Amino acid sequence: MEALRELVEVIRDLYLRGWLPATSGNFSLRMDEDSVFITPSGKHKGKLTERDFALVDLEGNLKDGQKKPSAETLLHLTIYSMVPSAKCVMHVHSPNATVISRLANDKISLKGYELLKAFGLDTHEGEVVIPIFENSQDMSFLAKKLKDYLFEHHDTVGFLLKSHGVYIWGEQVSQALMKLEALEFLFECELKLAIISGK
Amino acid sequence: MEALRELVEVIRDLYLRGWLPATSGNFSLRMDEDSVFITPSGKHKGKLTERDFALVDLEGNLKDGQKKPSAETLLHLTIYSMVPSAKCVMHVHSPNATVISRLANDKISLKGYELLKAFGLDTHEGEVVIPIFENSQDMSFLAKKLKDYLFEHHDTVGFLLKSHGVYIWGEQVSQALMKLEALEFLFECELKLAIISGK
Amino acid sequence: MEALRELVEVIRDLYLRGWLPATSGNFSLRMDEDSVFITPSGKHKGKLTERDFALVDLEGNLKDGQKKPSAETLLHLTIYSMVPSAKCVMHVHSPNATVISRLANDKISLKGYELLKAFGLDTHEGEVVIPIFENSQDMSFLAKKLKDYLFEHHDTVGFLLKSHGVYIWGEQVSQALMKLEALEFLFECELKLAIISGK
Amino acid sequence: MEALRELVEVIRDLYLRGWLPATSGNFSLRMDEDSVFITPSGKHKGKLTERDFALVDLEGNLKDGQKKPSAETLLHLTIYSMVPSAKCVMHVHSPNATVISRLANDKISLKGYELLKAFGLDTHEGEVVIPIFENSQDMSFLAKKLKDYLFEHHDTVGFLLKSHGVYIWGEQVSQALMKLEALEFLFECELKLAIISGK
Repeated sequence: MEALRELVEVIRDLYLRGWLPATSGNFSLRMDEDSVFITPSGKHKGKLTERDFALVDLEGNLKDGQKKPSAETLLHLTIYSMVPSAKCVMHVHSPNATVISRLANDKISLKGYELLKAFGLDTHEGEVVIPIFENSQDMSFLAKKLKDYLFEHHDTVGFLLKSHGVYIWGEQVSQALMKLEALEFLFECELKLAIISGK
Repeated sequence: MEALRELVEVIRDLYLRGWLPATSGNFSLRMDEDSVFITPSGKHKGKLTERDFALVDLEGNLKDGQKKPSAETLLHLTIYSMVPSAKCVMHVHSPNATVISRLANDKISLKGYELLKAFGLDTHEGEVVIPIFENSQDMSFLAKKLKDYLFEHHDTVGFLLKSHGVYIWGEQVSQALMKLEALEFLFECELKLAIISGK
Repeated sequence: MEALRELVEVIRDLYLRGWLPATSGNFSLRMDEDSVFITPSGKHKGKLTERDFALVDLEGNLKDGQKKPSAETLLHLTIYSMVPSAKCVMHVHSPNATVISRLANDKISLKGYELLKAFGLDTHEGEVVIPIFENSQDMSFLAKKLKDYLFEHHDTVGFLLKSHGVYIWGEQVSQALMKLEALEFLFECELKLAIISGK
Repeated sequence: MEALRELVEVIRDLYLRGWLPATSGNFSLRMDEDSVFITPSGKHKGKLTERDFALVDLEGNLKDGQKKPSAETLLHLTIYSMVPSAKCVMHVHSPNATVISRLANDKISLKGYELLKAFGLDTHEGEVVIPIFENSQDMSFLAKKLKDYLFEHHDTVGFLLKSHGVYIWGEQVSQALMKLEALEFLFECELKLAIISGK
């Protein structure tokens, strides 16, 4: 499948950038009304192939594939249920995302950057807010918090889990990648500015 | 075309360095008196091919190609009109360029570096000034400010748009790349020095 | 041999990441009760092949191979003798590991990160302690200190040698690599946080 | 020629690491009593081939090759004349080397690192001093200062030119590369420590 092949290639590239250390991160692709391809648990992200993906329904039941789906499957499914346009979800552990999630409290506000337009803004003069949720091993609890947040904030482009990593989504693999690259770029700029300004 | 092929290869390399995140950046090549190849709007810069370029005249009208030319075409054309020797214009969004553009006011002064010679200076003892323009979504307004500045400052080697990125040009692809690499190197040094000296 | 081939590939990748500068670092693979493949002394880690490894017994005597085994062979053998499940030992000189080993006193405490789960923890709420030993050229002395420490701390996942580098191990090449990537990621996060918080 | 082929490959790798931006840097290989291959002036270091090298005698006169030898040829020849064991000289413009040369006064002292052993020390407890010379466009003047320094300090392993870059040498290409990687690693560690300790 074309989109799955494209996603596998993206995952390998992101591994090489160092955003998926130690088998971390997970990725999914919505196929139709009731099926989602999702990466397996605990697999080296530089060596993933199309055959490694698990196929689950929207309740997370395994429909096909021999691998155990990612422990964070429920977060992916929550995004698909709350954001109907989302067809691809990406979750990575870049150092910048993890560091910035520990420095801020419950959100990061990104302002003034031209690259904000990657999130659909018409101008650099807008603001994009990235919420930060406390990390938890209780996926139902996290999914509930995420669902409530997305219900209240329709314009959400992604979120951080504290000391953990970032989630982002798009209407295709390429759009999710574009938003992920934009967010990582903005986190890197914000951290460099914080270092220099001594914040 | 040889120069276009060379430019495509450079663009892919710059994408891999992380200077063109999220489909950002744009590049052009002046072909003759009245035609310029320019990258299309919103295309992944790691996957660009020669066929993706749009051909425009010096007023920005599309002469050939199926893609919409970059929204910043007018800035490229302004450079070609004000700097007759320029045959290639490069615009990238490296984190260093973006960060330094937010730290300084209206210009950055680079002094004392051997690599200043990449801009045609005879010695490291000269100075290169990189102006910073406020970012704007009004390309006519930005083009006017750029034109006025270049009219007054014939020795300009490039400029920054605040919170946005850097523009540079050269007499061929290789010279524009050389100047871009020099500028990025100098921005990186200046930022590291600012971090350490606590500025 | 499959595992040795896998290890050689990992070593080349780690060289390209800059964690094995100047022929530094060493790696070993336990084959059976009394034989260990170990990298030779002073060889460029980006150009290593399977044939470069020395085969030693658990006292460090050369059983096969034309190369001199790494000067740090004794540390590898101490790990294999104290941690029976370990089948692969990795030692790298990443800048982050070296820098953090000079900043802390005798240990680094890692807390709150999701990626701690790479070390077998069930939750991000645990703690992983990485001891730091004073560097020494006396391998018997170092091996004795390491042995004593591992005897007292069965849950040790790796250790630092001050101003030198990091050691880590796993039940296969892939697990050792996973733990190494996790540790490097955590060191990078801790250093960035230290820079920003001005510690 | 084998050694020249090896050197060309090293140069391309160093370009990809970002240590040779904007056609900067130069490299040479001593062939015999009176001939030295040296890189040409102003050539992209990622695209260099064996045929691009100029062959000069020990006074710097062109013996063969169509390219103009590097403007810094005299510094290479001074090293060969003062350090008879040197067969390969490398000069790069890494950001770390350039930044550290601006922070320190006339020398950098490197102490306590295991990797100091790359310079022939028996232990990490020694010290390596890297002198920093003021940059100059007068190569005869610089060569004279270098010659005087090397005459007084036989154990010199390399030197910095302020705001410019680093020079290092070795008995073969591989040894020069090893020393260069060690020095770059140590500069990176020193800069990170300076940033964190707020020096």
